[in-house]
Amino acid sequence: MERLCRLCTLLEDLQKHGDTEVSSNQLSKLTGTPPHTIRKDISYAGDPAETETAAPRRKGYEISRLLDTLKAVLGLTKERRVCVVGLGKLGSALLNYPGFLGRGYRMQAGFDSSVNRLEILDTQVPLYSSSEITEVCRREEIDLGVITVPPQAAQTTAERLIEGGIRGIVNFAPAIIQKGESEVFIRNVFVAGEFHILSAMINQIEDHQT
Amino acid sequence: MERLCRLCTLLEDLQKHGDTEVSSNQLSKLTGTPPHTIRKDISYAGDPAETETAAPRRKGYEISRLLDTLKAVLGLTKERRVCVVGLGKLGSALLNYPGFLGRGYRMQAGFDSSVNRLEILDTQVPLYSSSEITEVCRREEIDLGVITVPPQAAQTTAERLIEGGIRGIVNFAPAIIQKGESEVFIRNVFVAGEFHILSAMINQIEDHQT
Repeated sequence: MERLCRLCTLLEDLQKHGDTEVSSNQLSKLTGTPPHTIRKDISYAGDPAETETAAPRRKGYEISRLLDTLKAVLGLTKERRVCVVGLGKLGSALLNYPGFLGRGYRMQAGFDSSVNRLEILDTQVPLYSSSEITEVCRREEIDLGVITVPPQAAQTTAERLIEGGIRGIVNFAPAIIQKGESEVFIRNVFVAGEFHILSAMINQIEDHQT
Repeated sequence: MERLCRLCTLLEDLQKHGDTEVSSNQLSKLTGTPPHTIRKDISYAGDPAETETAAPRRKGYEISRLLDTLKAVLGLTKERRVCVVGLGKLGSALLNYPGFLGRGYRMQAGFDSSVNRLEILDTQVPLYSSSEITEVCRREEIDLGVITVPPQAAQTTAERLIEGGIRGIVNFAPAIIQKGESEVFIRNVFVAGEFHILSAMINQIEDHQT
């Protein structure tokens, strides 16, 4: 399922940047998945046009049609409401991220514990104090929460979101969230850590060479 | 090593937000790693103060000292020069991301294939056309490249960076990069895909309930 979701993201980006067709060989190169696995995944998802020829003498998938099929299978046809908690640089960038548009997500609310920050921010999205997370998430029927708070505050933030009925969390804070008995799904994205990992890897090679 | 790198990121963030001490139990909660593994990792890294008491009757690590030790072991004491290729919303946010400061990274250059975009962007970082990637990376001795271009352009971008002597790549484009014979390290961060994965997971539960 993760593979199909990533394939969707890729297809959306290819489409956004002007492509209308793509072959399983091209998709294989872009995803690192063997072409026959790509074809199997897509055929499993039930695309009727799996290796139809669209342009003369070329085999390929029509991107918009393939996207419709994959999204239907994955349930990505339903619009999901999203909120962001922690409106520092990263959080406020995500709040106004146009990449969400056209992917089936609607940015519904932003939260921060600093009233000053809430007053300064320039955005179309309604903003609230972090103390209102549970109430607003319930009222606005928000499905997904994005956490971009300091690590110390990640757990409390998650608990408020979960109490507010959130179903899924994308966590950018470099701290693990304990979800307890709840059925919430959590995905961690530790961006800053990636730079340290690269840097440490390079260092190992350099040490080895000297 | 990845665990120690993530621990560094966490400690930096704790410090940034005002903490000066932390216990292995607290670190365990924040990282999801058992306390004895935390203590073993830190002791392996050679921290002399592993379970010293700083405040009366409390055991803990002094964060700044622990960070120094970990960074020395991981080679994170050397400043790494970074560039960003693809200055859309995400790329330009990363270009000006203050989170890099104090972590040992210096934003050295930004690249985009659109001259218009280069002219409009408001930043202190020197900007260049993507055709100059190889030349500028060599001249400025850039270590790390961040890729935030459309998926179609990811491979070409990576090849130019590698030819320019880049040692590590953080790839945000939803496409896999073939690194060929080069010794470059690549880390993929597929943010948009995470939302689709959550959404599909929630959908499975909802289908199951109805």
